[in-house]
Amino acid sequence: MTERIQDVAHLGRLELLTPKLDRSRWYFESVLGMEAVSVEGRSVCLRGYGDYAASTLKLTESDRPGIGRISWRAASPEALERRVKAIQGRGLGDRWDDGEFGRGPAYNFRDPDGHRMEIYYEEQKYRAPENLRSTLKNLPMKYTARGVNVRRLDHLALLCRDVAENRAFAQRTLGFVLREQVIFDNGTLELGSWLSPSPAHHEVAYVLDVKGASGRLHHISLWVDNREDVLRAAHVLAENGIFIEAGPSKHNNSQGFYLYSYELGGNRVEIYSGSYLVFAPDWEVVTWNEEERGTGVYWGSPLPESFIQYGTPEVTADKASAKRIPAFDPI
Amino acid sequence: MTERIQDVAHLGRLELLTPKLDRSRWYFESVLGMEAVSVEGRSVCLRGYGDYAASTLKLTESDRPGIGRISWRAASPEALERRVKAIQGRGLGDRWDDGEFGRGPAYNFRDPDGHRMEIYYEEQKYRAPENLRSTLKNLPMKYTARGVNVRRLDHLALLCRDVAENRAFAQRTLGFVLREQVIFDNGTLELGSWLSPSPAHHEVAYVLDVKGASGRLHHISLWVDNREDVLRAAHVLAENGIFIEAGPSKHNNSQGFYLYSYELGGNRVEIYSGSYLVFAPDWEVVTWNEEERGTGVYWGSPLPESFIQYGTPEVTADKASAKRIPAFDPI
Amino acid sequence: MTERIQDVAHLGRLELLTPKLDRSRWYFESVLGMEAVSVEGRSVCLRGYGDYAASTLKLTESDRPGIGRISWRAASPEALERRVKAIQGRGLGDRWDDGEFGRGPAYNFRDPDGHRMEIYYEEQKYRAPENLRSTLKNLPMKYTARGVNVRRLDHLALLCRDVAENRAFAQRTLGFVLREQVIFDNGTLELGSWLSPSPAHHEVAYVLDVKGASGRLHHISLWVDNREDVLRAAHVLAENGIFIEAGPSKHNNSQGFYLYSYELGGNRVEIYSGSYLVFAPDWEVVTWNEEERGTGVYWGSPLPESFIQYGTPEVTADKASAKRIPAFDPI
Amino acid sequence: MTERIQDVAHLGRLELLTPKLDRSRWYFESVLGMEAVSVEGRSVCLRGYGDYAASTLKLTESDRPGIGRISWRAASPEALERRVKAIQGRGLGDRWDDGEFGRGPAYNFRDPDGHRMEIYYEEQKYRAPENLRSTLKNLPMKYTARGVNVRRLDHLALLCRDVAENRAFAQRTLGFVLREQVIFDNGTLELGSWLSPSPAHHEVAYVLDVKGASGRLHHISLWVDNREDVLRAAHVLAENGIFIEAGPSKHNNSQGFYLYSYELGGNRVEIYSGSYLVFAPDWEVVTWNEEERGTGVYWGSPLPESFIQYGTPEVTADKASAKRIPAFDPI
Repeated sequence: MTERIQDVAHLGRLELLTPKLDRSRWYFESVLGMEAVSVEGRSVCLRGYGDYAASTLKLTESDRPGIGRISWRAASPEALERRVKAIQGRGLGDRWDDGEFGRGPAYNFRDPDGHRMEIYYEEQKYRAPENLRSTLKNLPMKYTARGVNVRRLDHLALLCRDVAENRAFAQRTLGFVLREQVIFDNGTLELGSWLSPSPAHHEVAYVLDVKGASGRLHHISLWVDNREDVLRAAHVLAENGIFIEAGPSKHNNSQGFYLYSYELGGNRVEIYSGSYLVFAPDWEVVTWNEEERGTGVYWGSPLPESFIQYGTPEVTADKASAKRIPAFDPI
Repeated sequence: MTERIQDVAHLGRLELLTPKLDRSRWYFESVLGMEAVSVEGRSVCLRGYGDYAASTLKLTESDRPGIGRISWRAASPEALERRVKAIQGRGLGDRWDDGEFGRGPAYNFRDPDGHRMEIYYEEQKYRAPENLRSTLKNLPMKYTARGVNVRRLDHLALLCRDVAENRAFAQRTLGFVLREQVIFDNGTLELGSWLSPSPAHHEVAYVLDVKGASGRLHHISLWVDNREDVLRAAHVLAENGIFIEAGPSKHNNSQGFYLYSYELGGNRVEIYSGSYLVFAPDWEVVTWNEEERGTGVYWGSPLPESFIQYGTPEVTADKASAKRIPAFDPI
Repeated sequence: MTERIQDVAHLGRLELLTPKLDRSRWYFESVLGMEAVSVEGRSVCLRGYGDYAASTLKLTESDRPGIGRISWRAASPEALERRVKAIQGRGLGDRWDDGEFGRGPAYNFRDPDGHRMEIYYEEQKYRAPENLRSTLKNLPMKYTARGVNVRRLDHLALLCRDVAENRAFAQRTLGFVLREQVIFDNGTLELGSWLSPSPAHHEVAYVLDVKGASGRLHHISLWVDNREDVLRAAHVLAENGIFIEAGPSKHNNSQGFYLYSYELGGNRVEIYSGSYLVFAPDWEVVTWNEEERGTGVYWGSPLPESFIQYGTPEVTADKASAKRIPAFDPI
Repeated sequence: MTERIQDVAHLGRLELLTPKLDRSRWYFESVLGMEAVSVEGRSVCLRGYGDYAASTLKLTESDRPGIGRISWRAASPEALERRVKAIQGRGLGDRWDDGEFGRGPAYNFRDPDGHRMEIYYEEQKYRAPENLRSTLKNLPMKYTARGVNVRRLDHLALLCRDVAENRAFAQRTLGFVLREQVIFDNGTLELGSWLSPSPAHHEVAYVLDVKGASGRLHHISLWVDNREDVLRAAHVLAENGIFIEAGPSKHNNSQGFYLYSYELGGNRVEIYSGSYLVFAPDWEVVTWNEEERGTGVYWGSPLPESFIQYGTPEVTADKASAKRIPAFDPI
């Protein structure tokens, strides 16, 4: 066994596509309490009060909702170089660009399912303006106590045609560690895999797209500090007329405490806390079979049908692919 | 309008019937963390660490699960006398008995649906033995930190054939205040009513029995201090293999944060927190129609079918009665 | 013993005097998240999102900080009449006035220490404007998720020269129940008494003024739903540069979870949760002697010296009175 | 700059010396709710319900309290080899031993201040016996809901004569990252440094020993999932008559939510939650000067004098060293 070196430090930023930029911005800024730090054309860059990078979420106007670029931060210039080589070796690389707001040069690529990704190293730390400076020297920005008051970006879940292929790419080409997986049909059908470059339980999940499509998003996930904050978020969302699809409740895999709503452009957004950290270097993958997995919910009600069926952008099921796929909750 | 005098101080104690006394005791004592203070024949008297009375829950072995006697504490000897007279005037009284563990003489009666009740004034305060004495002088018993660690008895929900009749009895004969109600069919079908003698939001709920039976229990409810404790309770119940029927989640009516499980004798038990207090003497009843009521859930998933159908003891639906009753969640 | 009838329903409203009306308003509206519902001259009427009355806190510009009128709501017109008679009988009554914003006629009086009070029955319920309407039919106003987001008015603590005299007035003339007291010097020096008209643990506390003054305020107290909200409040106050005098921590008497800050006019304000309710009609007063009382804190650090010394308005100690008074924490 | 490779995965286990083994065991097992997994002679091995290793805390009977061996887990066999070489190169190595309960061979060494440490790679995962198996497949052990119910080992704080020297050793020889530090006297006196091998904020702190001694312990720290659990822990400790030295409250550096008590052998134990994770590979050290640091407390009361003076084992101040050291709170 060769020694693992952690070349990807963490999920750096997500770009979300939205057909309703202004309504999406209102959702993230006024309801979730994130801060808008830059507006460029039909894009808005946002951040949580605890994010150290200048921006961790970018909204870009588009015909349809979905996920734009997924940015991974490398652990060092050398690590960046090694990963770019690996991606190129796998034939999935595209090109370098100059870097966007708050970041240095980034190398563009796609995962096997076609989701757009990039990897970069240089990043600008956030320097809060006077009125947003925290009284805590180690907090990058004032706790504004506005709405849900999201602390930071946490992870995302991607739908894909072939979980095993994308999972292997994340492990071998990006160097992620597999934490948990759901496998049905006596171990022959991999329905979902949760992976991470870091001790965070997962920073990306690959989940089978029950409609047989590719390149789609299941959800992005934003962190709050505890379960009481997730409960509070439910009240804030409800009072603002935002649809709550599921939760607050607790998943069995990941142990995460979740709340799913749709931002106003149509993308699913999770407010998240709990879960667990993995510091052990020899983690044993936790594999759930059909029976163990149950509903994917540790407590109470099962997840609704929409949770299995709906992703962004919406598509009509590809019948050839879809028929062999069991109903499955992609937490 | 005549002046209202609060003659019933609060719900004093509940007796729960169980076909599995030992398993039920294990549930309340080891899992919920209540304290057993007396065993008499096939009955066990229990208390929460914050209950001021010697005992607030009695388990009695029986063929079938269900609710035994429901005890209301009067506000004074004079209040006791007034209520006994009112009950007798309504033709629902039975007889005085000598009082059970920790209580003085009690007057037995039945509500119109046939649930057994009693009213009493004299009550023994709990005096903790040395090893259970709290370091807080104003806490009747040590916080034992065992399992769910229920603080105190809160309320109960009764199924009945005719909500309006039982609700009117609670208002007129017992002097309770109506807090909220659910009325369908343009105000002609009263499905549920939440009432209280005190500023607690409700100490009893009357809910339509969709099976057309009488004398049945929907649930008893036990209080913990906050929502985080309800979430913690879910983990404790799950780890002990106890079935969780619904929650933790939040009701719209009552604003209560709930978790429903079945104790091992089959009765539904709620772990409860939140809700709100009503100090206003001129409370305006909150009435929910079919549309407003929705699922009875403020967040997330609807309550499961069993929540509507299951009560104790179980019965076969009375077809003549049952057919005119809509599906309804009796929170 | 004569039967007790609860003639005072609850604490209805507080008037706070402030030399900095605009700064005080900013504190309650922007930092604590209360809602301003009326401005009249140099007064502002505010409310918490869960208050049922139109307004529960009034800020009035004044030379010095302190407490203005303390309003008690009667339980009925008859109860109002009985209490007015009792107050007049005690020789402490003043006159009727027409009632202020949101209220009917009120009878003005003073407690023995000279604090201004009034009692009234008629009260206007809050009807939220469209943009502040809650999605919960039983919540009078939208949960705005702004700052501390105070739910409702809870209680107040008054400094006085003679605790026993004021405590007896509250019991005999207003009909309050004594819940807890602190008595030093082998039972000869009553330092503090906590009283309530309702099952809320206390709605008013009388505490010895260590400076020998009269008519002063120790603190007003505002309710949030749980301890996590009090912790959150500490962060919000700190980020807004508001002085935190003590807490978040837990008192031994009252079991309350507290956080004390000074609003910008100089009055002490508590953010409060926890404590316990008393439904028992035969409550046994909990009396703490010097040793049992300790620091008044159940956990951790003692309260600071300012907590004992500072009240509003500030005064120079009356030496004749002050010298016989021991150091004491007036929670 | 050379690329950093994370050779130490995490803090693996702590050995605590105690003159009262049975009382210490009662504290960790019955009050904190940890599980005893092995008894060997006058040592007991314990674990939190969420620890993945077989044991993370060892109690060993000794004349005096204090810290025994501090075990660091290497990230791989190669990493172990590299670190042993580095330690040997620094002249602080001792010898290999065969490994203790649940672990493979370990290399023994001392930090510059003389604290005993070891580094190892092989470790046995915990396999819960039937009665302690969790219903969550990804949880190594049942949540027993006993007392404080500590989840896992978090970090420790060591007192030392020379913070800069020990900090540099942790950085250069062990490869840890410096997260925060407190430096007084215009940057000339390093009072405390917080370091970590992983994204956990700190796994070890080096703090100046105000008594001028060496090899002493300030505290060990155990994790619970949220702040509400820390508050609950305070109640559990208080009810069991355990001395609470400080908290629950919040530090400014680390943002940790803390509660300090003494286990019955005399060592200080922190119950801990909150803080923040650092995933950024280019973390900028947060340095607090005398003014910024304040009391080390973000909210409310300063830490007590004992928090500065007391460590284990207790010593008489070394006058020659002690006189130049300012009062300082070693959080």
